[in-house]
Amino acid sequence: MEVKEITNRDIDFAKWYTDVCMKADLIDYSSVKGSMIIRPLGYAIWENMQKVLDEKFKESGHENVQMPMFIPESLLNVEKEHVDGFAPEVAWVTHGGKEKLEERMCVRPTSEVLFCEHYKKIIKTYRDLPKLYNQWCTIVRWEKTTRPFLRSREILWQEGHTMHQTKEEALQETLKMFNIYKDFQENYLAIPVITGRKTDKEKFAGAEITYTIEAMMYDGYALQNGTSHYFGNHFADAFGIKFTDSDNTLKTPYQTSWGVSTRMIGALIMVHGDDRGLVLPPRIAPFKVIIIPIGDVEHQLVELQESLKEKNITYKVDDSNKTPGFKFAEAEVKGYPIRLELGKRDLENGKVTIVRRDTLEKINVDYNDVVDKINELLVDIQNDMYNRAKVRRDEMIYEASTYDELKNIAETKPGFIKINWCGNVTCENKIKDDTTLKSRCIIEDEEVNGPCVVCGKKAKTRIYIGKQY
Amino acid sequence: MEVKEITNRDIDFAKWYTDVCMKADLIDYSSVKGSMIIRPLGYAIWENMQKVLDEKFKESGHENVQMPMFIPESLLNVEKEHVDGFAPEVAWVTHGGKEKLEERMCVRPTSEVLFCEHYKKIIKTYRDLPKLYNQWCTIVRWEKTTRPFLRSREILWQEGHTMHQTKEEALQETLKMFNIYKDFQENYLAIPVITGRKTDKEKFAGAEITYTIEAMMYDGYALQNGTSHYFGNHFADAFGIKFTDSDNTLKTPYQTSWGVSTRMIGALIMVHGDDRGLVLPPRIAPFKVIIIPIGDVEHQLVELQESLKEKNITYKVDDSNKTPGFKFAEAEVKGYPIRLELGKRDLENGKVTIVRRDTLEKINVDYNDVVDKINELLVDIQNDMYNRAKVRRDEMIYEASTYDELKNIAETKPGFIKINWCGNVTCENKIKDDTTLKSRCIIEDEEVNGPCVVCGKKAKTRIYIGKQY
Repeated sequence: MEVKEITNRDIDFAKWYTDVCMKADLIDYSSVKGSMIIRPLGYAIWENMQKVLDEKFKESGHENVQMPMFIPESLLNVEKEHVDGFAPEVAWVTHGGKEKLEERMCVRPTSEVLFCEHYKKIIKTYRDLPKLYNQWCTIVRWEKTTRPFLRSREILWQEGHTMHQTKEEALQETLKMFNIYKDFQENYLAIPVITGRKTDKEKFAGAEITYTIEAMMYDGYALQNGTSHYFGNHFADAFGIKFTDSDNTLKTPYQTSWGVSTRMIGALIMVHGDDRGLVLPPRIAPFKVIIIPIGDVEHQLVELQESLKEKNITYKVDDSNKTPGFKFAEAEVKGYPIRLELGKRDLENGKVTIVRRDTLEKINVDYNDVVDKINELLVDIQNDMYNRAKVRRDEMIYEASTYDELKNIAETKPGFIKINWCGNVTCENKIKDDTTLKSRCIIEDEEVNGPCVVCGKKAKTRIYIGKQY
Repeated sequence: MEVKEITNRDIDFAKWYTDVCMKADLIDYSSVKGSMIIRPLGYAIWENMQKVLDEKFKESGHENVQMPMFIPESLLNVEKEHVDGFAPEVAWVTHGGKEKLEERMCVRPTSEVLFCEHYKKIIKTYRDLPKLYNQWCTIVRWEKTTRPFLRSREILWQEGHTMHQTKEEALQETLKMFNIYKDFQENYLAIPVITGRKTDKEKFAGAEITYTIEAMMYDGYALQNGTSHYFGNHFADAFGIKFTDSDNTLKTPYQTSWGVSTRMIGALIMVHGDDRGLVLPPRIAPFKVIIIPIGDVEHQLVELQESLKEKNITYKVDDSNKTPGFKFAEAEVKGYPIRLELGKRDLENGKVTIVRRDTLEKINVDYNDVVDKINELLVDIQNDMYNRAKVRRDEMIYEASTYDELKNIAETKPGFIKINWCGNVTCENKIKDDTTLKSRCIIEDEEVNGPCVVCGKKAKTRIYIGKQY
């Protein structure tokens, strides 16, 4: 029984990432190119994410529905910007059994058009508003190159689609859901995020405003990890959705959509993982504790499990016939926040050994205090993971006041760069062509402090730029 | 504001069914032919079903995974019986964006072949067994005629796929999951079911044994409402799956699969619904109580909601500006088990009115006792609904000892017929050709009491026959 080898993350981060995905048993490949199998641990993490978010969605008045997974070509074509954005990357169904379809259909790459068609039928008056719908489903985008969780032909996600009586209400909804995402990523995933509006160039196809959650990975690359869009009347106009308002006039409703996906698992891995594998934040880990019994400790094992159950602390027991060394390595690669070694000799002295996954620190604890200590540690680990990620991220944010400086940082230092920008897409494109860095988002809370770093003209705003997954 | 009209179920059951689906806002149609939109109430019922079943699956050691949604044609072709069974009704993806795929892929109609391919990779020794996987997903079967929840191109379901060291263990698993389904349908859906093995003709493509759950609808038709299959080594052989057993010899594992789907929502409607609409059993209803405030009862409304929350009784409040009459009709069509009328005048006498959806009985209750009374009623309603459905079903089970008798019952009386049968598919086919009745399942606990009703030869077994959805 070999202990699984993982590539050093400072030597080859891409290989390290795939190694962790495979060796932590998060995913597997199959003969379905571009798709992945999500294995029990990977799926359990996703289920935990779903559970927390779904509760927050429902508390804020949203209802789940399920739209068809197919979109007839004519329906996809209703909104021009949207079809231009998605048509090049959809999977087309052309045959049902042996028969050619009269009209081909794509597997949904996102469901705006399906929701709009439905809303047109069910929204008649202001009494029907708001409509606050969400769906959990799989979408398909025919990517050329794929990477587990980050870029895959099939993506598990949720997509919220809402309709409102007024512009103000729709804008509020866009921000409310955006803040739910931000809160979730910071407080559950322990990922510090940068948030703001996308530039026009980087907006969602068809959106008036796109708010984005940008997380910085260990290698300094950005991962767009959730977006919330304000559509104005854009789709509603294209679909002819109208309602009679309380003043008896016919009006067009205002729309939002927002989504997060299994990409968040990719972020978890790349923000917190280390050379031994996955490191899961306690609040999202399917099992907070892995218990490794060493020698005959049956009595205490039963007792301990009951205490953990009582306190609602999820755990697993590794009672396989592998060696302790192998089990420790397995526990590390799979990222359990706490490893509890229940050893016969330790217990004779009334002690057990606890190992924190995040710091690998070993702690000798009185057997009688173990559950209290675990509860305390789970809080510490969660906080420490967030703080460490934040310190690292902040160290990798730079400022460039000239274009030479920008190019120099882009070449030599991984991370995000803050710049002053004139707002012109030509400058945005030039940066991308010269450095591959793209704008991440507009910085809302900082004043412009110089001219546009590209063209030297008056800057309108400050933005983050960075390489992206 | 019109009160929605529903067709009388004794006049046109098919129309009644569609009316209930539409008027209870369970589903809607879209331009995606053959698919349906599952609306908030329909989806909330499905979520409740998922929640109960998922907990039972996990308690019995199963883990959730997610396989790709596509199957390359060559992979579907590995097992012959299976491909013959499914190829005529799959949706084929032929293009990704503008490019034609080298090999076309179907959208999964079921995932045996995907699980087998994965199991071949991850099962090496007896220590890797059993593998107890389940997935919740959408499957696609290209049906010609469709009907909400019963027959649809897209089906939401779960599919369990397990691998075992021994035949006995696999057989036990097949029965264990079958019993979980049976228990769920009887105790949560309040649907009395008939259970047993399918005949060879009606088995799942590739299965050695198929156990089926057959429910009888109000119109006497059968709905196959869950199946559990024992595959033996059938697929494992086709895929070359082998493991080293504890005796160090190479063996082939034994396999099962089992599934239930949103069809169960169809069964709920057709077993319990009435001319006013849906009737939901309390244990599966998303909201057990609908509160209709009449007049200014703000204080009691707040108090009542807190009491219900405290007792974990889910509820909704209809505080729209519709008339009470309209609200009552809405509450009935949507099937809330209990309607609570919170009226100002009643409250002045310390009373509220409760209406049972199943019997439409009105009950005057002391305001102070209302939550206790609701709790009591929810149990009664659940039991009464089951018992009423059982009485009705039992009244529609007949026995035929001659072929003339069989044909006569088939023509004149809706329901199931018990017959003695020789075991020969020719006789099974003859019944189907002459009467459209198909065998439902083999009756395990009754002794043969005469010759085969078709050919007059020695009967091997007794079976239920009936028309089916």
